[in-house]
Parts: sequence; C-alpha cells; structure tokens
Amino acid sequence: MRFLGRFQQGELPLSRLEAFSDGVFAIVVTLLVLELEVPVLSGPRNVGELGRHLVMLPPKFSSWLISFVIVCKFWLNHHHILRLAGRADYAMVWLNSMFLMFQSFIPFPTAMMGEYPGNALAVSGFGVVMAVNTVAFIVLHAYILRKLTPPERLAAEDPRIIRKSAIGPFSYLLGAAAAWCNVPAAFLLYMVTPLFFITPPQRRRPD
Amino acid sequence: MRFLGRFQQGELPLSRLEAFSDGVFAIVVTLLVLELEVPVLSGPRNVGELGRHLVMLPPKFSSWLISFVIVCKFWLNHHHILRLAGRADYAMVWLNSMFLMFQSFIPFPTAMMGEYPGNALAVSGFGVVMAVNTVAFIVLHAYILRKLTPPERLAAEDPRIIRKSAIGPFSYLLGAAAAWCNVPAAFLLYMVTPLFFITPPQRRRPD
Amino acid sequence: MRFLGRFQQGELPLSRLEAFSDGVFAIVVTLLVLELEVPVLSGPRNVGELGRHLVMLPPKFSSWLISFVIVCKFWLNHHHILRLAGRADYAMVWLNSMFLMFQSFIPFPTAMMGEYPGNALAVSGFGVVMAVNTVAFIVLHAYILRKLTPPERLAAEDPRIIRKSAIGPFSYLLGAAAAWCNVPAAFLLYMVTPLFFITPPQRRRPD
Amino acid sequence: MRFLGRFQQGELPLSRLEAFSDGVFAIVVTLLVLELEVPVLSGPRNVGELGRHLVMLPPKFSSWLISFVIVCKFWLNHHHILRLAGRADYAMVWLNSMFLMFQSFIPFPTAMMGEYPGNALAVSGFGVVMAVNTVAFIVLHAYILRKLTPPERLAAEDPRIIRKSAIGPFSYLLGAAAAWCNVPAAFLLYMVTPLFFITPPQRRRPD
Repeated sequence: MRFLGRFQQGELPLSRLEAFSDGVFAIVVTLLVLELEVPVLSGPRNVGELGRHLVMLPPKFSSWLISFVIVCKFWLNHHHILRLAGRADYAMVWLNSMFLMFQSFIPFPTAMMGEYPGNALAVSGFGVVMAVNTVAFIVLHAYILRKLTPPERLAAEDPRIIRKSAIGPFSYLLGAAAAWCNVPAAFLLYMVTPLFFITPPQRRRPD
Repeated sequence: MRFLGRFQQGELPLSRLEAFSDGVFAIVVTLLVLELEVPVLSGPRNVGELGRHLVMLPPKFSSWLISFVIVCKFWLNHHHILRLAGRADYAMVWLNSMFLMFQSFIPFPTAMMGEYPGNALAVSGFGVVMAVNTVAFIVLHAYILRKLTPPERLAAEDPRIIRKSAIGPFSYLLGAAAAWCNVPAAFLLYMVTPLFFITPPQRRRPD
Repeated sequence: MRFLGRFQQGELPLSRLEAFSDGVFAIVVTLLVLELEVPVLSGPRNVGELGRHLVMLPPKFSSWLISFVIVCKFWLNHHHILRLAGRADYAMVWLNSMFLMFQSFIPFPTAMMGEYPGNALAVSGFGVVMAVNTVAFIVLHAYILRKLTPPERLAAEDPRIIRKSAIGPFSYLLGAAAAWCNVPAAFLLYMVTPLFFITPPQRRRPD
Repeated sequence: MRFLGRFQQGELPLSRLEAFSDGVFAIVVTLLVLELEVPVLSGPRNVGELGRHLVMLPPKFSSWLISFVIVCKFWLNHHHILRLAGRADYAMVWLNSMFLMFQSFIPFPTAMMGEYPGNALAVSGFGVVMAVNTVAFIVLHAYILRKLTPPERLAAEDPRIIRKSAIGPFSYLLGAAAAWCNVPAAFLLYMVTPLFFITPPQRRRPD
C-alpha cells in the first residue's frame, strides 16, 4: 500500500509530459513509412519491373494508412484528455507511459499485416494490438476524469463517456475475429473503428 | 452531415499541433540520410574501392538534397499559415494530419529516385508525390484562410494566393512528365519548384 | 583550471535543454521496437509458421518492456531534478549530455539481450550499461543539488538522497553478476531495480 | 536581386525554429547508435564468440563518442547564437536549415569511419564533413551577429569571434589531412577540436 501511495503524489506541469508524448507520436507515425522498402531490380532502368513491384505495395499502403489515421486519432484524443487535467500526478505519468509503450509498439503489427495481408494471424494480431492500445487509453482517460479533473470541467463532460469508449476495443476485437473468416472484412473494421472517436467526444451543452 | 459537423468543433491551442508537426518534419529530414548506406568493401583499408563507391553516390545526394530543401520549404510555409490561425478546430487538425501523412511518405520516393535515378518511373513517382504533398498543403492553407483567419489578418494576405499556389503541383507534375523523356530536366524542375515559395508569400503592404 | 572554469559559466533557461532531452528520451523508447522484426515466412498465408515465430519473441518483448520502463523512470526523475534547478550552467549542460549519451546507447544492449537471452555476456552487459546510466544520472543530480538548487528548495529535499541512490547501480551490477549463474534471476533484478525510483524521492514534509 | 530581397523579410518568433532544430539534433545523436549492430553468433549462448565481437567494437564506439560530443557542442553553441537574435528573418531560417542539413548528414561519415577506421579515405571524409558543418555554423553565426543582434547585446560579444571560429574548420581539415599519414593522429584531432568551443565564447566583461 505504501508503494501504491507514492503514485498519488507529484504535481507536475503538463508541458514536458506533452513534449515527451508528442515526440513519441511523431516518431511512431514517421517510422511507419520505413516498412516501405525500395524494391531490388534486376535492371536499374527497368520500368516494367519497378511498376510490377509498386503494384504489389497496396497492402503495405493500406496498413500504413490505417495505422497513421489511428495514431493521429489517439493523438487528438490524448490532447483532449490532457487538457481536462490541470496537472499530473505520478500515477497519471505512468498510465501515460504505459499507453505510449503500446503506441510505440504499433509499427510492429503494422509491418506484419502489411507484409502478410493474407495471413489470418498477422491481420488478427493487428486488431488485438489496437484493442490493447484503446484499453490503455481508456484507463488513462478514466483516471484523469476521476482524480485530476476539476469539478467545473467535469460537469461539461459526458458522464457515460468511459462506458461508451468500450466500443473501440470491442470493434477492433471484432475485426481480429473476422480476420479468421474474411480478411477484407477485418481491414474494413479497422478502417471504420477510428471514426467513432475521430473527434474527441463533444462536451455537453448547458441546457 | 452530422458526422461532418463534428469537425467544425474544437478550439485547440496551437502549441501541441506545432510540436507534433515539428517532430514529424524533423524526423522526416533526418531519416532521409538513412538511405545513404556504408558500402561493403572487399578490403577494409581499400581506399580506391571506397572512392569508387562514393563517386557513385551523387544521385543519392541529389535526391537527398532536393527532398531536404522541399521539406524545409514546407516547414517554413507551414509555420506561416499556422500563424494566420488563432486556434485550430478538428477539421484543421485532420487536414494537418493528412498533410503530415504525405510528408512522412517523402523518404520512400526519395530513396527510390536515389536508388534508380535513371528509371523514368522512379523519377516520375517522386514528382507525383511532391505534387500530392503540395495539394495537401494548399487544402490546409485554404481551409485556414476561409475559416480560421481573423478578418484583420486576412486583409493583409494576398487574396489570390491559393490560385497562385497551384503553380507548385503543376510544376512538379511537369517534372514527373519530363522524367519520361529527359531525366535531368525532371531533376532540374524538382530543384526549381521549391524556389517559388522558398519564402512564404509576402503580405500586402497597406497603400 | 581555466578550461574547467568555463563550465561554471552560462545561465541558460531550461526550455531548450528539456526539449532536447525529451526528444532523445522519446526517440530511444520508440527505437526500441525496431528490434522486433517481421519474421520471414516460407508461405505468406502460413499461420502456423508465423505463430511459431511469434512464440519465440517473448525474450525480445521482455527486453523491450524492461528497457521501456527503465527509460520512462529516468525521464520522470530527470523531470524532477531539472525542476530543482532554476537555470543551467555549462557544466550541467555537459553532464546532461553525457547522461543522454548513455541513454541513447540503451537500444544496443537491449537488442543484444533480446537476441541472446541465454547468453551470460549479453545479459550481463545489459546490467552494466544500466548501472553506468544510473551513475551518470546520479552525477547530474548531485551537481544540480550542490550548485544550482536555491536554498529554499534544497531544504525540502532529502539530504541523503545521493547516498540512497547508490542502490540503483548496485542492484544492476548484482543482476549483471547473477547473469553468469542464473539468467532468470538477472532478468528479475533488472525488473525490480527501476521500482526503487519509480517515483522521484518524496520531498520531506516540514515538521 | 528581387529574389534575394525576399529573404530579408519575415519576422518569426524563435520557438518553432528551436523546436525543429532540437528535434533534428535529438534524432541525429540518437540515430548514431543504430550503427552498432548486434553481432550474429553461430551459437546463441556462445559467450566467447560474443566477447570477440564486442572487443572489435571500439572503433565504432570512438566514432560514435566523437560524433556525439561534436553534435552536443553544436547544440550548445546553437542555443547561444539563437539567443543573440531576438527574431528570425527568412535568410536566417534558410541558413539554419542548411546547417541542420549538414548536421543530419553526420551519421553517414560516422558510420563509415566506424566501419573502416583503418581506411584513410573514410577517416579523412569524417573531418571534411565536420569542417563543412562548422563553416555552415559560422555563416549562421555571422549572419545573426550582423543582421539580427540588437546593438546592446552585440556590445557584449567578442568582435573577433567569427575570425577566431575559423580554428574549428582548420583543425578538422588538419585531421582530414593527417588521416592519410597517421590515423590515430586524425582521431586525436577530431577529439580535441570540439574542445575549442565546448562552451560558447564568453561575453566580454564591461571594464
């Protein structure tokens, strides 16, 4: 208990937490493109051969595009929930670090799905990782709402937002399951899911 | 419609948007150098062999140099247009994310053109990607001017700037077409195009 | 002596020192995932083969997880000690640079331990690097406390904190020694050690 | 002339210029470690074999260490000269971009010198690149002093600082020449050169 009590302490300004997080987000989205490798050609001026290689890239492009949109969506919502908190305590710092840890993991399943778009395990794994990321985000969100949001800001938030957020992991896991029957359906679900929170939840209008 | 309406909301300070964007710009320009690989030598002290390898690098250097200048030009103009906006709404955040997505893609065509400078498709692809990047930038610029620029700042801007900006994608596409006839002409066009907006458009002087 | 005297000078605001440090921390934690490589499959749709490859990844995951937690712990404590200092002099800048140099080295022993989790030298090396990192941090901490902390803030700090901090390098070196007899014991010690300073040392309550 | 005149314009706050620069510096120093590759072992638990590989790393470590110190030195001096300027114009932005371009190039000669420490051309190339970097920095410094430093701050600066700075490129080129006769002498010169400006030049004391 004394160990856990330490996390309730700390009163950190948010500026460096934001800088660290923005750095991680920026690197994750930029690393995603490193999966795209320049094909090796038998003849350097061989246009047809390069064309045939590029035509085979769409699965990699789709994985990249989907992950890019998902990470940007997390960035925007992360921005939103940090503004709810006036300050950070150590528990929030660590929940944020855990969330960033899962974010920084995203290039791996993205590369795997881009390399093996017809492999049910690879496509399914992508959805599981995204579900875990969303859960990590929800935990951070819930902690901020419960412990660090001043009452006047809390009043403007949707009181059922955490429960509503569960649709994200649910939908990613549905995609992960779908991958075993129908791969395009999984891709479709992965594309649709970030749209639920493409903008942060709206604040309630005072009646 | 209700879905699109959500994007009109949001009132974000620009600091984190800038931090995220600057992170992406910085990583993109720095990743560009990763294309340059240390050659494998048969004898580690073989000066002549290393020299022959380095002499073959100029196409890679030119691709790298051209991309570096283009990304820095985007950075400077991005700085300019963000200062027009006093705040960001969600639509601007997403237009900015789409722009950054295309920016983060730049290392791929740069590496391809550097690897195959004599391949018309590789050289042409570079121009197409840059045209798309410029269009993404123009869309963001137009949105900021129309929705987020306070009238007093708007008055100081050139009212025909968006139309004038079309010269960028046009010139890159001209280069992309030229690649099929004359590769050096394409390289030349790619070098000249960023000069049009090497500095942000000048504000009109009040008469 | 005149050479060393130059380091006592300088009066830098902390903002850029923080930005540079946060950039390094963010890149280090994100680079860690690059160790995880997409396996090469004989058949792209071969689920069983991909599964067998993924099952062999846990040592890499553990290395990655341990390093991630350690770097985040350093980040949080770095945040704490920089706030003690009102400003930086050149000596602090260079002690910070040395610390960041060792931080940026972390991906190498992490990759080595992840690749060869049964190799005593690889596992032992990880502990030695972490001990060196902790010593670099303690030197920076001690310098800030002695030279750059205003007396009123110093009074709130634990006066024996530097001596207490020695438990970190000691524990990592114990793990490095344990690696030669019992590898899981080494992993366990590497996991436990960051918990000592999982939150920065508490300020003393005024009695 | 009209083209050049555009660079005299612009009045940019320094915050984003610093953020972009700090991002590049942070990525450059962190990428340096990517040269260090985990050796491939015939037996994963083979301690002796791993030891023999690690023993061969010192040239790579020295290259990495030298580059790290050099980049940190540039970062600190960059911090110093940006504080002289109250604002940036477009010419300064582009001189800064050119400087960052050469900074981002540093991982390449560092990797080459680390891979082929006995190759005169590789070792010599490192010195040439560092000399070019230093010249790019001096040009930026001179521009800031001449155009953007307010008179009261200028008075506190050493009026002969630009001329004195020439020792840097001179010393690197000396190392580059030495590489052809005596490689350790070149390494020594590369280690000593950053010490000249290990701290920014001291401001003159008012008499």
